[in-house]
Amino acid sequence: MQSRTPEDSKTTLTDLVLPSETNPLNNLFGGELLARMDRAASIAARRHSRRIVVTASVNHVAFNKAVPLGSVVTVEAKVSRAFKSSMEIYIDVWVEDRESGHRSKANEAIYTFVAVDETGHPVAVPPLEPETELEKQRFEAALRRKQLSLVLAGKLKPGEATELKALFVNS
Amino acid sequence: MQSRTPEDSKTTLTDLVLPSETNPLNNLFGGELLARMDRAASIAARRHSRRIVVTASVNHVAFNKAVPLGSVVTVEAKVSRAFKSSMEIYIDVWVEDRESGHRSKANEAIYTFVAVDETGHPVAVPPLEPETELEKQRFEAALRRKQLSLVLAGKLKPGEATELKALFVNS
Amino acid sequence: MQSRTPEDSKTTLTDLVLPSETNPLNNLFGGELLARMDRAASIAARRHSRRIVVTASVNHVAFNKAVPLGSVVTVEAKVSRAFKSSMEIYIDVWVEDRESGHRSKANEAIYTFVAVDETGHPVAVPPLEPETELEKQRFEAALRRKQLSLVLAGKLKPGEATELKALFVNS
Amino acid sequence: MQSRTPEDSKTTLTDLVLPSETNPLNNLFGGELLARMDRAASIAARRHSRRIVVTASVNHVAFNKAVPLGSVVTVEAKVSRAFKSSMEIYIDVWVEDRESGHRSKANEAIYTFVAVDETGHPVAVPPLEPETELEKQRFEAALRRKQLSLVLAGKLKPGEATELKALFVNS
Amino acid sequence: MQSRTPEDSKTTLTDLVLPSETNPLNNLFGGELLARMDRAASIAARRHSRRIVVTASVNHVAFNKAVPLGSVVTVEAKVSRAFKSSMEIYIDVWVEDRESGHRSKANEAIYTFVAVDETGHPVAVPPLEPETELEKQRFEAALRRKQLSLVLAGKLKPGEATELKALFVNS
Amino acid sequence: MQSRTPEDSKTTLTDLVLPSETNPLNNLFGGELLARMDRAASIAARRHSRRIVVTASVNHVAFNKAVPLGSVVTVEAKVSRAFKSSMEIYIDVWVEDRESGHRSKANEAIYTFVAVDETGHPVAVPPLEPETELEKQRFEAALRRKQLSLVLAGKLKPGEATELKALFVNS
Repeated sequence: MQSRTPEDSKTTLTDLVLPSETNPLNNLFGGELLARMDRAASIAARRHSRRIVVTASVNHVAFNKAVPLGSVVTVEAKVSRAFKSSMEIYIDVWVEDRESGHRSKANEAIYTFVAVDETGHPVAVPPLEPETELEKQRFEAALRRKQLSLVLAGKLKPGEATELKALFVNS
Repeated sequence: MQSRTPEDSKTTLTDLVLPSETNPLNNLFGGELLARMDRAASIAARRHSRRIVVTASVNHVAFNKAVPLGSVVTVEAKVSRAFKSSMEIYIDVWVEDRESGHRSKANEAIYTFVAVDETGHPVAVPPLEPETELEKQRFEAALRRKQLSLVLAGKLKPGEATELKALFVNS
Repeated sequence: MQSRTPEDSKTTLTDLVLPSETNPLNNLFGGELLARMDRAASIAARRHSRRIVVTASVNHVAFNKAVPLGSVVTVEAKVSRAFKSSMEIYIDVWVEDRESGHRSKANEAIYTFVAVDETGHPVAVPPLEPETELEKQRFEAALRRKQLSLVLAGKLKPGEATELKALFVNS
Repeated sequence: MQSRTPEDSKTTLTDLVLPSETNPLNNLFGGELLARMDRAASIAARRHSRRIVVTASVNHVAFNKAVPLGSVVTVEAKVSRAFKSSMEIYIDVWVEDRESGHRSKANEAIYTFVAVDETGHPVAVPPLEPETELEKQRFEAALRRKQLSLVLAGKLKPGEATELKALFVNS
Repeated sequence: MQSRTPEDSKTTLTDLVLPSETNPLNNLFGGELLARMDRAASIAARRHSRRIVVTASVNHVAFNKAVPLGSVVTVEAKVSRAFKSSMEIYIDVWVEDRESGHRSKANEAIYTFVAVDETGHPVAVPPLEPETELEKQRFEAALRRKQLSLVLAGKLKPGEATELKALFVNS
Repeated sequence: MQSRTPEDSKTTLTDLVLPSETNPLNNLFGGELLARMDRAASIAARRHSRRIVVTASVNHVAFNKAVPLGSVVTVEAKVSRAFKSSMEIYIDVWVEDRESGHRSKANEAIYTFVAVDETGHPVAVPPLEPETELEKQRFEAALRRKQLSLVLAGKLKPGEATELKALFVNS
């Protein structure tokens, strides 16, 4: 299969924060943002694989910044690494100030999707070729995250996660 | 503040999977499940702290099992450890087969919430006292997860995460 | 068919009251609560019968207590009596005060569901065996409610509704 | 206050049955219909009283006829009797066959609303003057329903519900 | 096919403006009103044609009047002219003041629908026979609008749109 | 005020077509697309003006192409001309084929928004400076559309709409 670039799968979902999506402090519910990120990420995974895709996992997500009612929120998702049938998707979230027009980073998140056929069985996906410096960094880090994921799931012994082990042993 | 038990915060959200929440394979969208888990977990955090609570982070979540349209899904959330103003919430998700009545585990997830006052500033929460064997295991593991979280966020050097380090060095 | 207990069908749906579900006084719409109770009750009926179930009727429901925006509402449904193919479901609704943690009863409601096959035809359901004192009282009263229901629908002459008649004649 | 007629408060809500509102048999959920009827009835009560109104109770509702996906459903609500601050609303529901254009009665329901001021306290409503034969019948029967409601709520002794008592004793 | 009157297709959708449908000024979103009008208009088109119908176009719609949160909004749609397989639907929108009961016109809009068979191909629709003066005016004007529509879509040369041309040349 | 370019306000909303948004042919409802376009266009208008904005009108919109369930739909909105306090927004809609990755144009639409202050009064907006050839064409045509709009609203005599008149007279 021909490789694709992160730009090929780039998906932008810009939308408002509506009253029905906010908590008692009038900020966007964490759960709503998780759902929007899942939709954008699933489209990026589908654009890379041209297959039906299903959410396999969500990496650690930190909600560092409240997103107030009435904000314009931009969720941008790109494939950051392709494995055999799974794809890691990196998601950046920005919030925009209406008066200054200033955009600030509100969140980052990493989801993993699997490409499947009509019966739900995994199928191979094209390789990813990162282009920019940032895309290359995220591509490299994706392997470490995959190891961590396997360790946490009990599918890889910590001692065999060579990249991760080095991180702890040499520091 | 008087301590509370995990049972005190136990929150059960049993509901159906509706057509508007499903993907092309007729299974529940990952994003929808993330949003339901967030709602149940926020109620558990609120029951423990009796405060307004906001989502601080979502731990690694794996979607191991598809949840088909028309299923009955039970999301059960309990506080698994209380820190200064944050609380770790452990969420178990079950899916039920209509004909046999058999319940099977579909997912586990861990969210962290912070208790805040009306202006959004963190406030102290009561300590948690685990009772059952499982609650005690989850309570212990929560510390390791907090270290991992700090390491991933760049707020703790891997070498100082003593519990985590041991895991990799000795294996 | 083997009998089941009310506990076997117990269904708990705890959730928040969101802004899109409130009236001009910032309280939960009656209609929204009716819809949530229907969903919880349908799951209880399905757990008892292990069949597809459809709403057959809603008994008199009184809304005695307003449920304010941001409340945590718990809807708890249990089968209270099983007839040939229909089941009476008793629903208790509680609202919780965030600061005191106090739960107060907000509503009671009674729905009737019918178990059907894939073509929509009624099928037999297992008998119900009440266990607690309250379950036994509700089980007894269910018969009187069924008579009233038949009288109101013009399917039973008032004079033949012996239990109901006694109520009026002897008082 | 000047009296109003049922026609003055007549409220028609014609809408489609969408996929997200249907059960596994592809028929409208009972709970969805209850919510639509509540919205239409609340508008009728508001038109009669010109006040904020809140749902006080729902009478016995029977779901006699399934309403399939894609149907056009018409909910028509009119005030059937006004008491001091409460109003009984009679609701008729029709379903329409697309090909023949034939409308058939799918349901009837009766809701009670109370008119309140901005602080939620009950306020007086105008009297109702029924005009048609059907409106007069419903107006008369409303009193019997109110007695039944009070008896069921334990606020009136069965022996004092003179109209109801007659119904059982003389039959 | 037998002709039908505008009254035969008249569709009324009266509903509340809920918080989740409002903009930062607490007025109904234009997009929400466009969606409600589309639903009402599609039912009118379906009642006239007794066929599946799909939106073909929306004419110029002006939002002259804000519709505040909590309003009662009535959308009334009637077929204003039938062509071969398309129908023009005229939609009138009223907003109601709770205290005075006064209804004021908030909007007018014109949508075009096409009747199709199960495979999506256009099918013929019955002719329309306008009855009232207003219905006759709208019927006449529909032809001019259709020409304008064809001109704007580049399917008719301006010089061949004889009715339209007269409008500009003679004024 | 400093001028802005169409690119400055470019807003992309890429999202899925869900089952609850489709008609009996399993295509996206026209009304749903109108609502999505309104949301994207309002964000573009807000980005240009940095003000609260409200929908003023929708130009003629043709639905030429059905958008099937499960599609990925991209709505892209850019300001095409700024007047005193109003802005014309040009919206392009694409649908994407999953297997080939091919994007095809599904719709074009033009909305007008007005920038307002907190009390709803119109306020001045910055001028627009078109850059590309297409942006310049749309900028020019916007004036003709504004005249047509004023003619249709009865606020400008056809004979005074000089650009429009030329179109009909000379052809």
